[in-house]
Formats: sequence, structure tokens, C-alpha cells
Amino acid sequence: MTDKSPIEFWFDFSSGYAYFAALEIDALGARAGRAILWRPYMLGAAFKVTGMRGLSSTPVKGDYARHDWARAARRRGVPFDPPTDHPKVALPATRAFYWIEANHPGREAPFAREVFRRYYSGALDTSDAEAVAGIAPALGLDTAAVRAGLEDAAIKARARALGEDAVARGIFGSPFFMIDEEPFWGWDRLPMLEDWARSGGW
Amino acid sequence: MTDKSPIEFWFDFSSGYAYFAALEIDALGARAGRAILWRPYMLGAAFKVTGMRGLSSTPVKGDYARHDWARAARRRGVPFDPPTDHPKVALPATRAFYWIEANHPGREAPFAREVFRRYYSGALDTSDAEAVAGIAPALGLDTAAVRAGLEDAAIKARARALGEDAVARGIFGSPFFMIDEEPFWGWDRLPMLEDWARSGGW
Repeated sequence: MTDKSPIEFWFDFSSGYAYFAALEIDALGARAGRAILWRPYMLGAAFKVTGMRGLSSTPVKGDYARHDWARAARRRGVPFDPPTDHPKVALPATRAFYWIEANHPGREAPFAREVFRRYYSGALDTSDAEAVAGIAPALGLDTAAVRAGLEDAAIKARARALGEDAVARGIFGSPFFMIDEEPFWGWDRLPMLEDWARSGGW
Repeated sequence: MTDKSPIEFWFDFSSGYAYFAALEIDALGARAGRAILWRPYMLGAAFKVTGMRGLSSTPVKGDYARHDWARAARRRGVPFDPPTDHPKVALPATRAFYWIEANHPGREAPFAREVFRRYYSGALDTSDAEAVAGIAPALGLDTAAVRAGLEDAAIKARARALGEDAVARGIFGSPFFMIDEEPFWGWDRLPMLEDWARSGGW
């Protein structure tokens, strides 16, 4: 990596397109010579500003999205089997991320990758604090510590404030990328993001 | 071209992303060995079903879209200067397209390209029937005939019915592509559409 600023990767764990972006963003960052700053947030906060709704609950468009997620997964040979009542409200997973980042820096991105992997293979309820804490051993962390950490008042406040700041900066979707304050929305914008990162913008 | 079915290219003339798609779709079709069936429709009819709104009138997202259109145009070296009160209601242009298709087959796609080119360089009000008919000479057509044709009751009915059929088939955005009944939504999905077209799907 260089001394360039990282690419900010904003996402909601319950966003299907964020899952596909999470599978590709590290390699993109390596090619572009940029670190990735993983930033989970609650997309619902952004919806309040834009008046948008989640894909899954939008008529017609929701059906398209489910079809699209399935074919994208087939093309890549990865699972796409979120819980049947997808999307879950992934607040415990989001808070756990920030507790890990604060207390075990360097393990937050592996945690996020593991949350995506388990959630989209049907093995994790991201809205269940106990289940989320249960990921800890896979990362060499203590389950009870993560379980307590995601209830920490300061962590809750930090997760909320980060999300509010993001929305105030114009971040309104998932996945959503910022590079040197240039915004890119959507998984299918990764090629344009990479073009921008490698060319220095235009 | 082969005897394969065409790629259906559904769009609203007032959709900025449709403009960029229109600049690229012919070359994609040639590479994939598929004809392009140009299909303008009124996106507002789809919005009634999905509850969505136009990008330009969505808070925050509208600002992003305007920024995104401008940088996409810079990258390609093409203008992006629609009328200041963009988006116009492009009903006259849509009706003129179908009259030309019915009466001068083969000139409807050139007409559509010319509508895009003029509208996005600030030289055409697509909601003005007189202005739309004024394109006719550039295509070797008669201005008065096009002006009358876009008011033809049968043409009006056909344009409306085609749009309603599209929405009934799950077409809800612009640009929106159908290939062998497989749907692809969005300009930034052209690479996936081409992948599908060339591979035969997956």
C-alpha cells in the first residue's frame, strides 16, 4: 500500500450487492494501491433522508433483485442463501464490528468478511447478538468480550454517529464507496471506481 | 447479425443513464451478434407500479446522479447538457418514434439516436411536438408528416400499450434490457448483459 488515503467501503450487512462488493473490494484495492476502510452502517438511516426503500420491499424491483443476486452468485460460484426473512436488521453485527476495530484493530475487516460469508450462506442471523458474538472464536477473539462489547454504550454511540456522518456526506446506498471524497454507488460501479483510483480521476 | 432474437433496449428519453447506454448499445449488439430493438417508453408508468421516483427528484440521490452524469460524460468526451428543467416529459418524442417505426422502418433507431444527441446537448425540448417533428429533415423525413403522425390516435395507443406491456413483463427502469426474457437493469449492467449475450447465459 502507498500513503494514499484509503477507499472507504460503506455497506449494510443486509445488502445483497454489498456482499458481492465485499468479495471483490480487497483485490481492487490491491490493484489500485489503496487500503480499504470497511465501514458498516445502517442503511435505514439513509432511507429516511432519500425516501427510498430497501430493494427487497420494493414491488417488481425486489423480484428483479432476487433474480439478479442469484445469477450473480451462480456466475461467481458463491452461495447466495440469506435467511428466508432477509433482510435482517444487522445492528448487532455493525456494533460488534466497531468494538473489534477499537479493541482488536486489524481484525474488523476479517470479521466483516466472516459476517458476510455466514449470513449469505444461511448460517448467521445478524440481528441476533448471541449469534454475532459466536463468530469471535473464528477470529481468535473471546465470545463473551464481543458479546459485551457490542452492548457498550460508547460503541453504540460511535456506530450511530459514523452512520449519521456518512449520510450527511451524501452517502445513501450500499455498497457505497468514497475515494478522496469522490462518491461511487453500487456494486456494478466497481470498474468505474477502479478506473478513477488508478487514473487519479478526470 | 444472426437469427438470434434481438436485445430489447427499453428507455425513457429523459433518462440520463439511457443516453449513455444509447451511445454503447449498438457496438455491444454487433459484438454479441444480436440486433437491437429500440423501445422508448414512459418511465412514469413503471414508477406507478414500483412506487419509485425519478432520480432527479430524489433527495441526495438526485445530486449524486447529476454529479455522476457529468463525470461519465467527461470520461467519454461527450456533452451532457440537457435542458435546465430536465427531465422533460418526452411523450411527443416517444410517439414520433413509433410512427416512424411503423411508416419508415429502419429510421426509428437513427431518430432515437438523434433525439438523445440533441436533447443532451441542449438543442431539443422532447416535450415539444413541433421541436420533435423538426428532427425529420435530418432523417430524410417530412416534418409535417411526423408532426401529424405523433398525434395519430393509433400511434398514441400503440406507444401506451407497449409501455404497459413492458411494465407487465417486469420492466421498471431506464435503461432496461431484455435478452431472451432475461432482464438487465441499468447502464452499468452492460458488461453483464454482454457476458450473458456472448456466453448464452448461466
